[in-house]
Amino acid sequence: MDQILRVNVSRGTIAAEPLPESWRELGGRGLVARIAMDEIPPDCHPLGPHNKLIFTVGLLAATPLPCSGRLSAGGKSPLTGGIKESNAGGILAAKLARLGFRALVVEGDSRCLAPDVPELNSGTSGHGEGGEGGGPGRWQVLYISRDRLELRPAGDLAGLGVYAAAAKLRDAFGPKAALALVGPAGEGRLPAAGIATLDKDGSPSRYCARGGMGAVMGAKGLKAIVVDEAGGANLPLAHREAFRAAMGRYTEILQTNPQTSQVYTFYGTAAMVSMANTYGGLPTCNFSSGQFPGAEAISGERLHDLILERGGEGDLTHACMPGCVIKCSNVFAGPDGKVIVSPLEYETIGLLGSNLGLADLDAIARLNWLCNDVGLDTIEIGAALAVAAEAGVLDFGDAVAAARIIEEAREGTPPGRLVGSGAMAVGRAFGNIRVPAVKGQAMSAYEPRAVKGTGVTYATSPQGADHTAGLTIRAKIDHLKPEGQAALSKKTQVNVAAFDTMGLCLFVTPAVGWEHQVMVDLLNARFGSRRPPEYITELGRQVLGLELEFNRRAGFLPLDDRLPEFMAQEALPPHQVVFDVSGEDLAGVFEDLRGQVNGFRNSKFEIRLPP
Amino acid sequence: MDQILRVNVSRGTIAAEPLPESWRELGGRGLVARIAMDEIPPDCHPLGPHNKLIFTVGLLAATPLPCSGRLSAGGKSPLTGGIKESNAGGILAAKLARLGFRALVVEGDSRCLAPDVPELNSGTSGHGEGGEGGGPGRWQVLYISRDRLELRPAGDLAGLGVYAAAAKLRDAFGPKAALALVGPAGEGRLPAAGIATLDKDGSPSRYCARGGMGAVMGAKGLKAIVVDEAGGANLPLAHREAFRAAMGRYTEILQTNPQTSQVYTFYGTAAMVSMANTYGGLPTCNFSSGQFPGAEAISGERLHDLILERGGEGDLTHACMPGCVIKCSNVFAGPDGKVIVSPLEYETIGLLGSNLGLADLDAIARLNWLCNDVGLDTIEIGAALAVAAEAGVLDFGDAVAAARIIEEAREGTPPGRLVGSGAMAVGRAFGNIRVPAVKGQAMSAYEPRAVKGTGVTYATSPQGADHTAGLTIRAKIDHLKPEGQAALSKKTQVNVAAFDTMGLCLFVTPAVGWEHQVMVDLLNARFGSRRPPEYITELGRQVLGLELEFNRRAGFLPLDDRLPEFMAQEALPPHQVVFDVSGEDLAGVFEDLRGQVNGFRNSKFEIRLPP
Repeated sequence: MDQILRVNVSRGTIAAEPLPESWRELGGRGLVARIAMDEIPPDCHPLGPHNKLIFTVGLLAATPLPCSGRLSAGGKSPLTGGIKESNAGGILAAKLARLGFRALVVEGDSRCLAPDVPELNSGTSGHGEGGEGGGPGRWQVLYISRDRLELRPAGDLAGLGVYAAAAKLRDAFGPKAALALVGPAGEGRLPAAGIATLDKDGSPSRYCARGGMGAVMGAKGLKAIVVDEAGGANLPLAHREAFRAAMGRYTEILQTNPQTSQVYTFYGTAAMVSMANTYGGLPTCNFSSGQFPGAEAISGERLHDLILERGGEGDLTHACMPGCVIKCSNVFAGPDGKVIVSPLEYETIGLLGSNLGLADLDAIARLNWLCNDVGLDTIEIGAALAVAAEAGVLDFGDAVAAARIIEEAREGTPPGRLVGSGAMAVGRAFGNIRVPAVKGQAMSAYEPRAVKGTGVTYATSPQGADHTAGLTIRAKIDHLKPEGQAALSKKTQVNVAAFDTMGLCLFVTPAVGWEHQVMVDLLNARFGSRRPPEYITELGRQVLGLELEFNRRAGFLPLDDRLPEFMAQEALPPHQVVFDVSGEDLAGVFEDLRGQVNGFRNSKFEIRLPP
Repeated sequence: MDQILRVNVSRGTIAAEPLPESWRELGGRGLVARIAMDEIPPDCHPLGPHNKLIFTVGLLAATPLPCSGRLSAGGKSPLTGGIKESNAGGILAAKLARLGFRALVVEGDSRCLAPDVPELNSGTSGHGEGGEGGGPGRWQVLYISRDRLELRPAGDLAGLGVYAAAAKLRDAFGPKAALALVGPAGEGRLPAAGIATLDKDGSPSRYCARGGMGAVMGAKGLKAIVVDEAGGANLPLAHREAFRAAMGRYTEILQTNPQTSQVYTFYGTAAMVSMANTYGGLPTCNFSSGQFPGAEAISGERLHDLILERGGEGDLTHACMPGCVIKCSNVFAGPDGKVIVSPLEYETIGLLGSNLGLADLDAIARLNWLCNDVGLDTIEIGAALAVAAEAGVLDFGDAVAAARIIEEAREGTPPGRLVGSGAMAVGRAFGNIRVPAVKGQAMSAYEPRAVKGTGVTYATSPQGADHTAGLTIRAKIDHLKPEGQAALSKKTQVNVAAFDTMGLCLFVTPAVGWEHQVMVDLLNARFGSRRPPEYITELGRQVLGLELEFNRRAGFLPLDDRLPEFMAQEALPPHQVVFDVSGEDLAGVFEDLRGQVNGFRNSKFEIRLPP
């Protein structure tokens, strides 16, 4: 019943094929890792014809379970050069799953590899559209419905911002169509480009943001993917009653846990601003302090009050996907009651706000909208702009200059492209060693010197610096001390890898993250399997093992599992702490998971590695 | 007698210490490798306080031997992240050696690591001089003479181009002083920044160009090094007569070999333009063809005729160091007889000429002067500009646009800094997979698909893509075929590593490269040792072993010894060849040299690696 959809953009072919039996209980992040391992040569160029853009749905997608509809997008990352899985909420994954597709694999390369040799001193280069990859004619939209699978020309969408392009697509395909699309950043193959998808209200603001998968979509010549689920249906459950019972327990836990039923609901992720600032772990002015003088002005409490005060289109408790019981999302409106952006999240506030010296929620929200429209990861861009600010390109706190640079990324000018290449590229160009990134990817809004477990996650995750790979801030531990952080990070990373594979939102984990009996009951009821609760951990371990092995083959070493040098040397105010988790501890995190590559093996597709 | 000079810019100390006994027969490239291995943590940031800038002189420096005065500059490369040794002609090495210094090691970091946290929305960043590294006050000149060693403030030199700065320094220190200095590119810590030194006529145009060592000098806060050799003397020879005899044979071979006595002398390295074009191996328009329609207009023959025609300050046969018998260098004058640049070399003509679609020697010479003045590697910049041209930033053949971008590198604008970050950075920003670079360093002017042995060198050299590490074009082999190229490259690389360690110019190798008896006679006569001729090869092997081990510890894998993907896929006109030396052949090149790290070990300085 479940299928894999393969699209080859070189040949213009689309074909559905049965889901291999070995992948029957694999989805989301785990399936991305398995397909990448089997089919992507780990040493290929991420923007070349050998990389693949892999979309997957989770194991519990298209079931009635709340928060089960995350969409994973992955492949080899143009930002890190390693494996990447970036997931987003919204409506696409459930619709794709309801059509019976567990994964969508985009292969090939729409561009002619060799440029024409230009005439001598002819005054034109013959392929000057490099930024746009050869002119608008080549852009395509992939249309997926029960009855039709096709690649259509999308010339009229080329160059459009995400909001305008999504509006055009919704006009053309109707308000029920789910979309994934790239903005000018993805078209221009910028390493910080993400992939936008629609939320349940049609706003294209749920992002597979991290690791540059938008650039891979751009390299494949896809401006958008449209999924029309008409005729689709929820997936069969092996044991309907058992599923209902487990789902009842799951929902009840979510609805009684204070984090998932109150904090996220009323303050959104922005609740974290005050908490991180109190801990001295709020990235401020390019990670030069852990406390921001303007923290109160950008806090979740302030956001909450502003939304209520202003009314209008603002909405305090918004769900990105139907049936969500947490509703962490929000709609942020300006003084005139008109929406500025939805959602406005903690990571964005941290990176485009405090880390950029900006204490103004309206200004942050407008930068957020702009990044969304250009199609950029707000975390990477906030970090890149702050490195640029430290180099004197703009002033900290200058939202107008920041917006101008993001607009330049849209236009594809060299300064815009430099910032759109991410924080590491900016640091390199400006000779600045203070770049908060690991494996080429910028850190999120948890200062690793003050939240050391999350620092271990940044250092060791095969995904590069990424809080969603294993956030430790809610653990009962002294976050300033190095002791115990490696074990904490590992446990968290393994667990999250399993939840990402099930397609669940990260925000269920404060409530059900360790309710492994409930989770395995859900899987067993869905698939008719009889797994013990320990399987959740085993699943996470297998997924991480695959990712680590992909990275090993791509050229990563345990040596790459380090934070930037300056964080071990420069004491962070206010606690005057350096990152002092030992190299030995870091090297030990995944020691036992290296070489774990046999889970879910599907020999049919496995590539042969060059000798 | 021989000493090591250590300068710590954090503490402002300068101290001479005796050359360790184990380094008595080590110099040049080999001594760079040994010091790097012992003293630089391989995983440090190249621009941070733990990297060192190492200058060394060769084993035969400050002897009467012609062509023995190359200056090596090295450390961990900001461009490749691996070991770097870049050498240049001119007069500094001999003078440093005549003062008794085998090496000069610059340590520490002149910058304060942590920036001040700026005031909230204050409108200034508090450290906006990032590009210049904290304002002109911090720049220093290191002065070295027999009686005085000192660091002097150099505020009045900050921001000056290399030619103007050198003129000021010569005014201040007299026309006999030798100089090494950086331009605005090095001050700005650009990864393509080189270190300029004076030729024998006082022109600051001999460059330790490759790998960004100018950025390391900038990171150490050194604008210039001045060496006054007054009171110095040639180094003692253990066996004066034996040295004289061997030197006689060496000189005779140089003076009778057609390459070293005629081709280099009358046509300079530019003779290679016609040869490479004939082979179909002249990089053209970002490595998209091996033949350039305008090759004749930029050939060595044309250069020769132009210099003779124009007369004036032009000079066909110029020596960069006193006593050179090859005199490959030239002085290129414009139609008015005034010098445009000296020298104008093949690699520059290939990268800033054919590879940029530019068929005009005057225009190339002006771009060359501009790169020299800003302090940039012409190879890296030519490659970076061509990648930018392919992306539509400028037109191929547009010298005015190219000059404008190089001027922007001087000014430190984002577009200038992007190009000054090298070809790989430009490719990343523009999503262009056609980047002719290995380990982050751009290829020189030999197309590896058409000159496959040199392609093997690019792929496998621990220095990154660099023809000087092992140029194979003069070997009797079918350069288009993959067979035998790995062995040829290895043999050449091992041999060159020995010559680089002796401090000899690469251009003696066509004549005496395999005259190992002569070479070992020279070493034996200099040091009173009794080495067999096989020692030359052994020396090269030990040096490469050290470099490979440094890179291994820095995180390089055999996987990194590859050419870019597109060169294996895209057939190169006119021969329609791809790079098809097998991964197995590439992996085998240095298999037996990995782990060779005991040569010249000096345990006194060895760093402890983190666990």
